[in-house]
Amino acid sequence: MMDASKYAPGYYPAPENEYRWVRKDHIEQAPAWCSVDLRDGNQALVVPMSLEEKIEFFQLLVRIGFKEIEVGFPAASETEYEFLRTLIEQNLIPEDVTVQVLTQCRDHIIRRTFEAVKGAPRAVIHFYNSTSVAQREQVFRKSKEEIKQIAVEGAKLVKQLSQEYEGNFLFEYSPESFTGTEPEYALEVCNAVIDVMEPTPDRPMIINLPVTVEMSLPHIYANQIEYCSDRLHRRDSVILSTHPHNDRGTGIADTELALLAGAQRVECCLFGNGERTGNVDAITLAMNMYSHGVDPKLDFSDMPAICEVYERITDMQVSPRQPYAGSLVFAAFSGSHQDAIAKGMHHREENSTHQWTVPYLPIDPHDVSRTYDADVIRINSQSGKGGIGYILETAYGYNMPPKMREHFGYTVKAVSDHNHAELKPDEVFRIFEQTYLNRQSPVVEFHEAHYMQGKQMRATVTVAVDGQEYEFFGSGNGRINAVNNALKQGLGLEYTLDTYTEHALDTNSSSRAASYVGLSWPDGTTSWGAGTDTDVIVSSVKALISAINNRPQPAD
Amino acid sequence: MMDASKYAPGYYPAPENEYRWVRKDHIEQAPAWCSVDLRDGNQALVVPMSLEEKIEFFQLLVRIGFKEIEVGFPAASETEYEFLRTLIEQNLIPEDVTVQVLTQCRDHIIRRTFEAVKGAPRAVIHFYNSTSVAQREQVFRKSKEEIKQIAVEGAKLVKQLSQEYEGNFLFEYSPESFTGTEPEYALEVCNAVIDVMEPTPDRPMIINLPVTVEMSLPHIYANQIEYCSDRLHRRDSVILSTHPHNDRGTGIADTELALLAGAQRVECCLFGNGERTGNVDAITLAMNMYSHGVDPKLDFSDMPAICEVYERITDMQVSPRQPYAGSLVFAAFSGSHQDAIAKGMHHREENSTHQWTVPYLPIDPHDVSRTYDADVIRINSQSGKGGIGYILETAYGYNMPPKMREHFGYTVKAVSDHNHAELKPDEVFRIFEQTYLNRQSPVVEFHEAHYMQGKQMRATVTVAVDGQEYEFFGSGNGRINAVNNALKQGLGLEYTLDTYTEHALDTNSSSRAASYVGLSWPDGTTSWGAGTDTDVIVSSVKALISAINNRPQPAD
Repeated sequence: MMDASKYAPGYYPAPENEYRWVRKDHIEQAPAWCSVDLRDGNQALVVPMSLEEKIEFFQLLVRIGFKEIEVGFPAASETEYEFLRTLIEQNLIPEDVTVQVLTQCRDHIIRRTFEAVKGAPRAVIHFYNSTSVAQREQVFRKSKEEIKQIAVEGAKLVKQLSQEYEGNFLFEYSPESFTGTEPEYALEVCNAVIDVMEPTPDRPMIINLPVTVEMSLPHIYANQIEYCSDRLHRRDSVILSTHPHNDRGTGIADTELALLAGAQRVECCLFGNGERTGNVDAITLAMNMYSHGVDPKLDFSDMPAICEVYERITDMQVSPRQPYAGSLVFAAFSGSHQDAIAKGMHHREENSTHQWTVPYLPIDPHDVSRTYDADVIRINSQSGKGGIGYILETAYGYNMPPKMREHFGYTVKAVSDHNHAELKPDEVFRIFEQTYLNRQSPVVEFHEAHYMQGKQMRATVTVAVDGQEYEFFGSGNGRINAVNNALKQGLGLEYTLDTYTEHALDTNSSSRAASYVGLSWPDGTTSWGAGTDTDVIVSSVKALISAINNRPQPAD
Repeated sequence: MMDASKYAPGYYPAPENEYRWVRKDHIEQAPAWCSVDLRDGNQALVVPMSLEEKIEFFQLLVRIGFKEIEVGFPAASETEYEFLRTLIEQNLIPEDVTVQVLTQCRDHIIRRTFEAVKGAPRAVIHFYNSTSVAQREQVFRKSKEEIKQIAVEGAKLVKQLSQEYEGNFLFEYSPESFTGTEPEYALEVCNAVIDVMEPTPDRPMIINLPVTVEMSLPHIYANQIEYCSDRLHRRDSVILSTHPHNDRGTGIADTELALLAGAQRVECCLFGNGERTGNVDAITLAMNMYSHGVDPKLDFSDMPAICEVYERITDMQVSPRQPYAGSLVFAAFSGSHQDAIAKGMHHREENSTHQWTVPYLPIDPHDVSRTYDADVIRINSQSGKGGIGYILETAYGYNMPPKMREHFGYTVKAVSDHNHAELKPDEVFRIFEQTYLNRQSPVVEFHEAHYMQGKQMRATVTVAVDGQEYEFFGSGNGRINAVNNALKQGLGLEYTLDTYTEHALDTNSSSRAASYVGLSWPDGTTSWGAGTDTDVIVSSVKALISAINNRPQPAD
């Protein structure tokens, strides 16, 4: 039962704002990326990763280009402790990659975290405590001042241990459940932590303001970020970080608007994995920047391989509609979209444009290793002549005249409708072959033709009609015209040859020609034919006979 | 290969703005909802819906509460024509529901659309043409003025035919590919259409500014909406509509910010189905409003049934992380989240609060027919004492003392880790039984106890030790104390009974008691036991013996 009176906005807007971010158009440079796949992401799986799976995932993240990777909460579980020790002891952390470990602001957990991380070439110690109204009242039952003291005491211990333990430590503090916390209070706590840690521009610390649970519209979060960014102590020594979840489906927007508002770093997961509705998706964020011409500093060019590793290890599926990665995100089934894409692709080739501007394709699918033929123009009963013609042209080289495309479009759609199924390019081509090139049991079958050039061209055409061989004679102002006259007269048919086009089919030396013929009949109907041959005249005669055979038969 | 230089922002920001929307906190009332599941949604399926499936889907949309439903592009396909005729002729359109049909601004298509819609009790004729720079240049090869004329001529014909045909017609115009169009030009085209259609406050028309392809950050779209909303002719006679797609993963944000900026209507699909990355998800939008205390005027209380119909008809899957609907969106596997949820739920019960404020749960899962036991606290190797204790308490009535919860937590996590699998509540309970209540081949087995009250309580306890029966005697200041002394002395054990708690297990007349005992041993280890019986003393003795049997055995 739905009763909205149970709810009220549970967030706290920033008390004041300059809204400078709203005047910015797009993100101008990539933020610092931190993957939390192995922590938040792993924590959200029905079956968490094994040690071996974590190592494979870690190596995938390194290949993609992540320079900061949160590897777990080593004090909370034996597996995460073991994983961190394995990374360190087997020297699996590249020189330019920093691992990050999470710890609550609790004495014994902080101590065990330093134990777990010792010997790491470089590590971020990420300490946090919950600061939200709900957690203060319901979970910790402590005052604002007491909660702030948890953070301050945690910071003091982290600082002290970082001096006692050998290692190259950086620090991150998160007021957890930030989105349920009064921004003024979260800022107060963060500044108290900064005052303890004393970061410098050379050794900055990370302040992370997580969207632990998404509670507001995304601009509210951007306002909170701007408010805090303007008021953090030692601002030039602080890297302001975001960590959005996606409970309201606006994790990407939270992040993007926060980056405009002053955030410099993003904690994220591949494919938006993570607790509940997921952490914000690293791929969408990076590819969104890329589509605006900004180098995201992450490489998703081998998207299919990334999908494979992700799906196998997490046992999650990449949704067919996952931006930039899903199986359907470049697909166009509908006629008008296919037509526009086909024209846009032609325009691109004709003009050799560097800039990508093809309609309905936010990026070039090739950039993420997807193909035009299999992934973009897809044929079913919603499709149109543009797409079907495009498939035949780009995948098989047949460039039908426009009106024939329309006619063939209906033929293909009818097959898809009847089979209640999508048609792959080879199935579309098979329909083309069966309809035009190799019609089963044709009425008229071409055998041979001879020509004699006099004042006019004269043709002798040998065909079989219903299996019986005939010779027909005709003349005209060219070979095709002569054959046409021979057939009309011999077969006793009344039609007009409206359309005749041909083109080379192959680009190699044994080039074949493809010809297309359109006929209109006395009853107002039209019919189409196509033929191929190494001899352009033979291909044309075959096309003419194919069109004759395709005459709509009311009696059929 | 990724090369960002190929791309540049392909959108056109509004030339000027007041940014009034950014000062608003949340959406204050539900917009007019229009489902485009049967058109955009259907058009995006690998196998489009059959006639029967369309009817079932239409009925689902009506049940949810949609009052406007776009039913197709009847001039483009025989199936969509048939579907519309079936709805009309079989009187399947409820009185308060308006169907909407789509048509391009082309003469014969508009005419066929009026044919298709005749006899509908009430219908929106939705006409459109593409206005974007890319489509003008690449697809239509027409000037701005020529493209505007297509819209104006379309409007004139629609107006004329609506007077010729019988029926109650409303009108919608979309400058298609709005997000790739200069806002000033889109506005000019829309105003030219409005000038033709002459809507009035009593008979308003819809102007729809679609995010055909998402090209910008969401605030850019909000700015465009504010710009257009402020400058549309006959503004009080226009319903400003949005139709966002999700190419950049920000369709929800586009819509929400647009609603702040002046939009009044949303075209959307269930579960974000729709071309490529999908149309904006109706469910997330509605439930986002709901979670802020706003009645969305759509009913998703029977979410599992809605998922079932959707998945069966579209052959798409509802993602486990789909906001408000996915199988994992209320799940908490991690210890700290489980603990906070358990405390939040307790707080809620203790204080009988109406307002929903439970941490980590954006809404009450019950509101969408999900259960706390099966869907919220879920147990695997990441889980903690809070969640495991909560499951035993809420599903089985066992309320262990805090330290015993911690101890049992490790036991359960070890089983999950070892099995590499999630544990369902009944499996957790089975581990509880096997560990405490019915240990297999226990060393010490309780048979019976007799008490005699003198100056002190004296007890005679009969137990089997490794299968052989013994009688032990002891005295103390109460029955438990006497039994404890008898066992310590008889078995020759040194331990301290640290914890003893008990509670009623059932609430009915044949109430049983559950007792818990914690012992600490000379080597610093602790052990825990539990027992149940209709007699509270017996349950306590069982718990004590259970704790003795659970003494950690270094030799094991």
